[in-house]
Amino acid sequence: MVGGGQLARMTHEAGIPLGIRFKLLSDTPQDSAAQVVSDVVIGDYRDLDTLRAFARGCDVITFDHEHVPTEHLRALEADGIPVRPGPDALVHAQDKGVMRAKLDAIGVPCPRHRIVSDPADVAAFAAEGEGFPVVLKTVRGGYDGKGVWVVKSVEEAAEPFRAGVPVLAEEKVDFVRELAANVVRSPHGQAVAYPVVESQQVNGVCDTVIAPAPDLDEALALQAEEMALRIAKELGVVGHLAVELFQTRDGRILVNELAMRPHNSGHWTQDGAITSQFANHVRAVLDLPLGDPRPRAKWTVMVNVLGGDYPDMYSAYLHCMARDPQLKIHMYGKDVKPGRKVGHVNTYGDDLDDVLERARHAAGYLRGTITE
Amino acid sequence: MVGGGQLARMTHEAGIPLGIRFKLLSDTPQDSAAQVVSDVVIGDYRDLDTLRAFARGCDVITFDHEHVPTEHLRALEADGIPVRPGPDALVHAQDKGVMRAKLDAIGVPCPRHRIVSDPADVAAFAAEGEGFPVVLKTVRGGYDGKGVWVVKSVEEAAEPFRAGVPVLAEEKVDFVRELAANVVRSPHGQAVAYPVVESQQVNGVCDTVIAPAPDLDEALALQAEEMALRIAKELGVVGHLAVELFQTRDGRILVNELAMRPHNSGHWTQDGAITSQFANHVRAVLDLPLGDPRPRAKWTVMVNVLGGDYPDMYSAYLHCMARDPQLKIHMYGKDVKPGRKVGHVNTYGDDLDDVLERARHAAGYLRGTITE
Repeated sequence: MVGGGQLARMTHEAGIPLGIRFKLLSDTPQDSAAQVVSDVVIGDYRDLDTLRAFARGCDVITFDHEHVPTEHLRALEADGIPVRPGPDALVHAQDKGVMRAKLDAIGVPCPRHRIVSDPADVAAFAAEGEGFPVVLKTVRGGYDGKGVWVVKSVEEAAEPFRAGVPVLAEEKVDFVRELAANVVRSPHGQAVAYPVVESQQVNGVCDTVIAPAPDLDEALALQAEEMALRIAKELGVVGHLAVELFQTRDGRILVNELAMRPHNSGHWTQDGAITSQFANHVRAVLDLPLGDPRPRAKWTVMVNVLGGDYPDMYSAYLHCMARDPQLKIHMYGKDVKPGRKVGHVNTYGDDLDDVLERARHAAGYLRGTITE
Repeated sequence: MVGGGQLARMTHEAGIPLGIRFKLLSDTPQDSAAQVVSDVVIGDYRDLDTLRAFARGCDVITFDHEHVPTEHLRALEADGIPVRPGPDALVHAQDKGVMRAKLDAIGVPCPRHRIVSDPADVAAFAAEGEGFPVVLKTVRGGYDGKGVWVVKSVEEAAEPFRAGVPVLAEEKVDFVRELAANVVRSPHGQAVAYPVVESQQVNGVCDTVIAPAPDLDEALALQAEEMALRIAKELGVVGHLAVELFQTRDGRILVNELAMRPHNSGHWTQDGAITSQFANHVRAVLDLPLGDPRPRAKWTVMVNVLGGDYPDMYSAYLHCMARDPQLKIHMYGKDVKPGRKVGHVNTYGDDLDDVLERARHAAGYLRGTITE
């Protein structure tokens, strides 16, 4: 796996019972996954020679993030190394312009969008629809709200163009909530769909995930699952695919973003599903039969643990475990910095209010925003 | 953790979400746990200097097996390293003579027993009770049926004395089945009890565990749990304690063996309990609050996967995953040798017959004794 973040850490954890020998390419020995994996190569994934040396002896290469250059992936494939997901699929998670064009071509509903060339073009795009505000995104390199701007005027539209990267304009969707449809697909085309979840963002960062999405119309849930399965198939995805969705006020579902790797909206599956997204990602990239994606509990809630003002979470960690012996804590081994994702908690049960309260209390207490 | 076997492998797996930095002392880099842990020291646990160097910088030392010499553990403690379970507790899992004497002293029912000095003494022991057969055990070094003999005559009683180790004689208990009571205790005395399970042995090796033990009288289950909690307290156990029990034909419960580490009779907890034995062992030895031990399913079954005649299990592994997407496979990364424990499978559900059939089919198919 290329990339030493928490997704690699949790993928390794899920691979242990499967008997998988996991090899990691990590930026530093302190990275989240490098702390827990036996076979670690320290190096820069942007360097083709490093990637090539790392890939030698691997049965398959997969990813903790989408930042490996497409041409490097093609070079690995030319060397005979299976890359899953492959570059032709992964480009849709790397380049939002390519993604939108492809989804348009296969008829998947998206927010109104087009590539814009300068602030005046943004104003023209706004005028073609409902006007400002307009969402601007650099086509490459954004995540967790970075590389995304909501601009209210032509003056505000200058900033995104400064990086010299193509910019995509999108309508600001009038959504009632965000959903995510997570699916996993194997090279021989087996696919499984997790229940559609509700994903709540705070300041552009995923905060809470509720599985399944409460009060979601059954037909809409089915439509979202089918859409995600179709995207996985049409784009040739292998492994886990997260389709982030807007549920609009007028009852439609529009695709926001795609991620081709285990995803924050699927962390609930570690404790809430028969087979976790991490286990199924491993099974998919190794072309093993996929595991059952169904939930084990009526409700499962995941809340991210962000760093607060205190670098030492230890006493809060003790408190949360003592308060709730059913709480499932997942820490990433990261230094605590304000706003940084350092872990998440999962809770499950029959009563959604209780399950939500327990998860939110624990995450808030760990962050230091709740002190009782 | 001292010892690189599958128990260390699965303890590391359980420590990852807790954010634990796991350090391993392993005989070889190929050992089950050494394959998956980042921080591995290769060395011999029987060598005190090796142990001391390994322990430096550890917050606490715990064990994959009971073979570390008691005097070495005392030396580590004298160096200021917390050893959990400590030598005064662990000796009861290392020396069956010490264990029996202590259980007698605290009034825990055991099979009739005494240390015997030679074959004539075995005959005398037999004559004091129901006669032959008699069970003979070397007081140290036995596991999985090794170091245990069932002798039918004074002539057969010669063998166990050849090693020059003290020999314990025990009545051959007329049991209807074997049970196990698993508990976890922390240094400040918090303790949790898992439901009592039925443990089925084949040729002296654990084969199947059913959780909870079917048709177990509630009072007897409570008695077994209380007995295990009392043993943990009286012996000063820290971490996981497995109490292997005989359920006699006349409705009593007698202690067979003790193990002070995660135990084969607790592997079902990985998929069948809210908190696994491995997670609770880690929490206990680090003096973290313990997790909820209650079951998540009505029935959970664990069956060990033993090596068969074919060294390559891969196609069987594919078959089992494809046949049963709910199957939970736990492989240890070991070379397959006939009769060697190379993994286990867990299944769970509402229908015990179905749950048992699925686990037995998968384990048999992996071993090669079932081919359809």
